[in-house]
Amino acid sequence: MFVGKVTGQVIATKKTDVMTGRKLLLVEPYVLGRENRETLKTTGRTFVAVDTVGAGEGEFVLVVQGSSARLTPETKPLPVDCAIVGIVDSVRAENRCVYSKDGVADE
Amino acid sequence: MFVGKVTGQVIATKKTDVMTGRKLLLVEPYVLGRENRETLKTTGRTFVAVDTVGAGEGEFVLVVQGSSARLTPETKPLPVDCAIVGIVDSVRAENRCVYSKDGVADE
Amino acid sequence: MFVGKVTGQVIATKKTDVMTGRKLLLVEPYVLGRENRETLKTTGRTFVAVDTVGAGEGEFVLVVQGSSARLTPETKPLPVDCAIVGIVDSVRAENRCVYSKDGVADE
Amino acid sequence: MFVGKVTGQVIATKKTDVMTGRKLLLVEPYVLGRENRETLKTTGRTFVAVDTVGAGEGEFVLVVQGSSARLTPETKPLPVDCAIVGIVDSVRAENRCVYSKDGVADE
Amino acid sequence: MFVGKVTGQVIATKKTDVMTGRKLLLVEPYVLGRENRETLKTTGRTFVAVDTVGAGEGEFVLVVQGSSARLTPETKPLPVDCAIVGIVDSVRAENRCVYSKDGVADE
Repeated sequence: MFVGKVTGQVIATKKTDVMTGRKLLLVEPYVLGRENRETLKTTGRTFVAVDTVGAGEGEFVLVVQGSSARLTPETKPLPVDCAIVGIVDSVRAENRCVYSKDGVADE
Repeated sequence: MFVGKVTGQVIATKKTDVMTGRKLLLVEPYVLGRENRETLKTTGRTFVAVDTVGAGEGEFVLVVQGSSARLTPETKPLPVDCAIVGIVDSVRAENRCVYSKDGVADE
Repeated sequence: MFVGKVTGQVIATKKTDVMTGRKLLLVEPYVLGRENRETLKTTGRTFVAVDTVGAGEGEFVLVVQGSSARLTPETKPLPVDCAIVGIVDSVRAENRCVYSKDGVADE
Repeated sequence: MFVGKVTGQVIATKKTDVMTGRKLLLVEPYVLGRENRETLKTTGRTFVAVDTVGAGEGEFVLVVQGSSARLTPETKPLPVDCAIVGIVDSVRAENRCVYSKDGVADE
Repeated sequence: MFVGKVTGQVIATKKTDVMTGRKLLLVEPYVLGRENRETLKTTGRTFVAVDTVGAGEGEFVLVVQGSSARLTPETKPLPVDCAIVGIVDSVRAENRCVYSKDGVADE
C-alpha cells in the first residue's frame, strides 16, 4: 500500500457495465522526503483509485493496489486494481509527526 | 488504474488461440503535470490494452492492469494484463478541469 | 501487455521440474518514441518470457505479464510471470505505420 | 520480496472495516550499494505494510508484496498488498556482512 | 521472469511461521547492455528470493515474481513473491554468447 493525496476526480460515463456508479479519484503517491525527513513529498505519479471510504480532494489516504484492491465489500466484483481503503489521520516517521490531518506538519 | 491516451493499434495475426479477434490498442499513461497542474502530461510509457468499450485513437481512457484486467465480460478467459474499461469524459484536479472530451483544457 | 523485441535466449538445464522443455526467450519492451513518433524505441529493459507461439530472434512480439501469463494452454501449470502470446505484424500510431514485419518503418 | 527499514507508522481510524486494528508501518526498500558493496542504501521509496511479526521503527525487515501479502495467518482476509513477514538478523553479500542487527556494518 | 545474479543471503530468524527453514537469497536483475550488446549489466536493484534449486552466490539464475512465485512444489503455501526457479547455463543475444556458466563472456 502507499500513502497518497487525492488530487482530483475522473468522470467516465461510458464504461464496462459493472463499473457504473463507482467514484474514481485521482491519487498521487507520497514518500518520506530524502533529505528533509519531516515532510511527505509527491512522487509525481498519478493513479486512478475507486473510493471505498468517502475520501475528498486534498485528503491523504491509504491506497491498495493489484488483486487486493478487489478485497473490499465495495470492490469485490470489479475490474479494478487500485482502491482507497482508509483516510490517513497522521503519519509519524523517525519519532516526528510528518503529517497530521489536523494541520500539523504538512508539506 | 490510470488515465491514458489511445495512440495506436497493434496487429498480430499469429497469436495464442483465445486471443483471436481481440482489438489491441496502444495506450500511453498520463499524469497530472508537476509544475503546471492544469494539464495532463504523458509518461512516455506504452502499454498494449484489450479494448472493451469501443475506444478510438486520440481518446483518453481508463485502463486497468494485472489480474483485474480479466474481470470484464469481454476479457474473462483471456491471458491479458491490461484492459480499457472506460472512456474518460473529463478529469478535474484541484478544482479545475484539466481535460474534457469536448475540447476544453487538453494539453 | 507490451510490444517487445526478441533479442536472445536463456538456457537453464537445472530448473524446477515443471519448467523442463520450455523455451525461454529474452525480450526487450519497446515504446513509441517521445519526439519521433514514427519509430518504436527500446526501453533498455530485459525480461525472460516463455514462448507460446514459435517466436524467433529479432521478431516483435506481444508479451503478457503477471498471473495472466499462466492463462495460455502452454503455460497454465507453470511458475512463470511473462509469456509471448503473439507475433506482431504491424504497429500503427497516430495514423502512421511505425512497424511492419514486412520491413517498412522499423527503427 | 525486499529488505526494507521501518521508518514510521500510519494512523488511519476511518478505514474499510476489515482493516480495523491492523498496524500499518512505513517501510523503505534498501538495495546493495552499487559502488560500495559493503552497505545497504535506501531507494527513497516508501511503502505502507501490515506488520505480522511485531517489527519496530529502525529495524530491517523482510517485506512481501502483491497477492502473496495476503498469505499469512494475520493478513489472509485483508485488502492489503504489502506485509512484513520477517525481522532481518543479518544480510551477507559477496562474502561480507553488510548488515547485522547487533550493530555491525550498518550504513 | 528475469535473469539475475545471486549476490548474498538474508538471515531472518523471527518470521511468520510458514517461512521457517526457507533459504532467502539476494538477487540483482541483469539486462542486456544498451551500447555493448555482448554483456549483461546489473540494474542495481536488489530482490530477496526463495531458492528452489540450490543456487549459490555468484551464479546467474532465473527468477519469477508475483503470484507465480508460489507455483513451485517448494513455495506453494508460502507468502512469497519472488523465487529462483532455475540456474542459468548460458545467455545468447543477437547471435553471440553474452554469458556462460563455464566462464565465457561474463561482464
